[in-house]
Order: sequence, then structure tokens, then C-alpha cells
Amino acid sequence: MLYLVGLGLGDAKDITVKGLEAVRRCRRVYLEAYTSVLTVGKEALEEFYGKELILADREMVEQEADTLLKEADVCDVAFLVVGDPFGATTHSDLVLRAVKLGIPYKVIHNASIMNAVGCCGLQLYSFGETVSIVFWTDTWKPESFFDKIEKNRRSGMHTLCLLDIKVKEQSLENLMKGRKIYEPPRYMSVNQAAEQLLAIIQNRRLQGEKPETTENTICVGLARVGAPDEKIAAGTLQQMSSVELGGPLHSLIVTGTMHPLELEMLKLFSVDSSSFENNACQRTT
Amino acid sequence: MLYLVGLGLGDAKDITVKGLEAVRRCRRVYLEAYTSVLTVGKEALEEFYGKELILADREMVEQEADTLLKEADVCDVAFLVVGDPFGATTHSDLVLRAVKLGIPYKVIHNASIMNAVGCCGLQLYSFGETVSIVFWTDTWKPESFFDKIEKNRRSGMHTLCLLDIKVKEQSLENLMKGRKIYEPPRYMSVNQAAEQLLAIIQNRRLQGEKPETTENTICVGLARVGAPDEKIAAGTLQQMSSVELGGPLHSLIVTGTMHPLELEMLKLFSVDSSSFENNACQRTT
Repeated sequence: MLYLVGLGLGDAKDITVKGLEAVRRCRRVYLEAYTSVLTVGKEALEEFYGKELILADREMVEQEADTLLKEADVCDVAFLVVGDPFGATTHSDLVLRAVKLGIPYKVIHNASIMNAVGCCGLQLYSFGETVSIVFWTDTWKPESFFDKIEKNRRSGMHTLCLLDIKVKEQSLENLMKGRKIYEPPRYMSVNQAAEQLLAIIQNRRLQGEKPETTENTICVGLARVGAPDEKIAAGTLQQMSSVELGGPLHSLIVTGTMHPLELEMLKLFSVDSSSFENNACQRTT
Repeated sequence: MLYLVGLGLGDAKDITVKGLEAVRRCRRVYLEAYTSVLTVGKEALEEFYGKELILADREMVEQEADTLLKEADVCDVAFLVVGDPFGATTHSDLVLRAVKLGIPYKVIHNASIMNAVGCCGLQLYSFGETVSIVFWTDTWKPESFFDKIEKNRRSGMHTLCLLDIKVKEQSLENLMKGRKIYEPPRYMSVNQAAEQLLAIIQNRRLQGEKPETTENTICVGLARVGAPDEKIAAGTLQQMSSVELGGPLHSLIVTGTMHPLELEMLKLFSVDSSSFENNACQRTT
């Protein structure tokens, strides 16, 4: 049996009882290590689970799936994923491969950032399409996520922005020379995401557009959701560019139209309640 | 401390280790019993948690929140919610009440239907606004959810349809006479939801419209997601009106444009692969 086990978002104890029992039963346990991270490292998980973990990077999952699935028809193998196994990244490839090999699989769900963001008080069913904001480089500054945010806002919907993670990236030089030397991991902060959005708004104005999303749009910055040191800050997009949220992982929400109850919840996390009052777009029903 | 603890979707063991530790520490433990249900009853939970649970219906949470929060500033109280505490229903009211009373609170997240639906292979970030499909009565047949589905489909987005739950409903007669006699709980099935959607499509055609969503639109019926007897069926909307999924809870997804990988995953659950091929709208990128 292949178990796809969600680890939740905080630390070792965010695994479900069912998940923990499965992990302890398995012969091999892989930890997916490229789409998200917990606030604790591999060692803390190993100690709590009482199992050695094999780190599975993207290369391994994509290119060595058969190694990963070896003998999973006769023994139990677990694939651990931060959040939910079908959260921000689906692991459909692995499931399809298992099915083709005749290996049964079971999903053990957990919270993912896709539903845990509800803790800020915005209603999950008022979110439109989720977007990913990628790190800009000197030569590559995509803006397509902004168009999706605009579309959601025009429909009154909130937008969850998942922020870029760069793990096991090679510098151009190392890549060209075929050297497997990796840069330190980078996690986009709410500040960086807000700065990129502000830059796009400026660009659009230079092009004569009048974006729905402005410096004054109410946003929510979230850091380490589900962890003991979780931090949530609500304020204008401008304020998000300088708010202090600490270490990764960060997420950003650009709000649409808010229900009064949503607004009241957000105020619990406001960086500055006065500017907040004037800039929120409220639903009157 | 007020703990808002998500129970996940299946049975007693879907609670997280952190959640279980919190529950066992609490002086009073309430079980929210009006927005969702697990596949096991209160007694099974009590036995596993080693705690007596107090059932909290909507009336109690809305009208007797202060009783619920009594002494939560000096002792630990838990409020258990099937799924995630901020999933389909947010419990913002309770949180705001606690904050006003100076009671600290902590959220222990878990999977909710809002993210667990990813198990069918459709990507969560390709979902638009979530809708609720309510039971029609002889005199009340709202169609507003259909317009949201149409809007999502026009943008290529999938729609998660949460299906109605009627718990502790009174008959009109008992309500008028002030008798607190309740009807048996009712849970909308995928069949019923599909029938209502098909009826709306007919209505719209009679009005001269040409709906995006038709009898042949690929849909996914999900039952008891996360439980050992979970069932997923993918097929046309017409097929959803007769597919056999067993007991509650059910959810329905109306697909938008699909990525080839999403389509390949859905085929694992197809009721009839031939009709499937012709009716899916694929994304070519």
C-alpha cells in the first residue's frame, strides 16, 4: 500500500492519529521536500514518528518514482507531504504511476494552506482562483497572476497568493557547468510579494490602465499558519510591503468585497485600524 | 484558552495529535453538530478521546455562546468542528465573542472538504467560487448557485458544490405550534443535486438561454471523503443523477477546463469511460 500522508502545517504533532499509525507501520517513509516546509526539520519529525525519513526532492519523485514505489504492492510505503497530499501541489503523477503498477493507495488528508487561511476570518467560499506569485529576475517579470487577482476582485472574490519557494536551485553558472551545487533555499516574503504587486500597478498606470487593485486595497499577510508563532497582519497593500512577519512560509491574500463579519475578524489582525476603515470594500448584505 | 479543533473528515482518528492532546487537556469539550458529520457518532469520539462531549447545536452556539465560553479564561475549553474550524462554516462569531471577553484562543487545523476534494485529481487552484446547493421545496426553488457555476465554467474554473444538510428542522406545523419536535436529519445526495441542476438547465433553455453547463458536462460525485469507504465517481451530469454513492456526506464538482493530468486522474473514477472521452473540455497547455 502507498500511503500519501498530509503532515499539516505546523510541526511534528500536526499529523493525524491515523497518519501517524500509518507512518509507524511503513517499511519506507519518504518526505516530500520541495513544495513546502514545516517549522521543524526532518530530525524532529524522525524523532516523533520513530522512523527514518528519506528526503524526496522533485528530481527523485519525477525521475525515480519506480524506486520510490518499489515493493509497495507487498509492503507499506509512505509519502509524506507538508499540508495535504492534494493541496497546493497535487501528487497525481505518483498516484497514476502507482495505479499503473497495480499498487493500491490511500490518502490521509490534513490541513493545507488552501483551507487554513480561513483562520484570518475571510470565508473560504468567497475566494476566487488561487494564484502563485513567482520571484522576478532581472530579465523575467511575469504579471499574469495580477490579471487573475484583478478578475477575482471585479467579481468581489478574495485571492489567495501562494508565494514562491526556490529549493535546490542552481546558479546559471553551476547549471551550465553541470555542477550539482545548489543555492540556499529562498522563500518569498509578504514584503517581496507586495513590492512586486505595487510595481505591476505602477506599470499598468503607465500603460493608461486603472487597476482595481491599488496601494490601498486591503490585504492579509500570513506567516507560519498553524504553527505556535503564526502571525497574521491585515492592512493595505502598501503596508504589506513593510510589515514584519518573521521567517517563512508566507502567504498573501488580496481581499475582494467583504462581509461585515469578515471585516470584523480582519480587524483583530490590523496593523493600523484607522487606514483600514476607509479602504475596505464592504458588502452590505 | 478556547481551542477550536478541526476533526477532519473520516472518523475519530482523523484528529491531529496536537488536537487530541488539547482535547484531553480540556475541562469542557463541545462538539459542533450542525454543519457537518463524521462517519462515526458522538459515542465513538468520546471513547477515543476519553472525554465526554457536549453536543452544540446552532441555537446553542448562537444564543448561549457565553455559557460555552464560561471560565475559558481560567480553564481550557475545546470546540470541536468536523473538517476545519474555518472550513465551510467559519466560527468567527465565537472567536469574536471570546476576544471580547479577553479569552485567548487557538486554532488547530485539519482537512476540510474545501481542500480534501483535491483527492479526485482536480487541482485546487483551478477552482472558482464554491457554491451551496440547497434543498428545493414546492414553493422555493432558488437557482442562484447555477449562475455561479456558469460563471466559473466560462472562466474555465471548476466549482465545488457543497450539498445541503438539514439538521434539527421543524415541520411547519410543529414550528407554528411551538413544538420542539424535529424532523429526521436530511443530507442532499449527488443524485438530488444533479437532478436540481438538470431541472435548472431545462428552465434556462425554456427561457431561450444556452447554458454552458449541460447534461454532458463532466462532474465528480464524492461521498464520505477521507473515510475508509470513500467513493468518487466521475461522469456526465446526467450520469450523476443516477450514480450510486451510498450514505452521506456527498459533494459534487462541476468541472471547468481540464488539464490532461486532471483528466487522466478523473478517469480512475469514471463511471463510463467512453462517454467521458467525448465530453471533457481539455486545456491544451
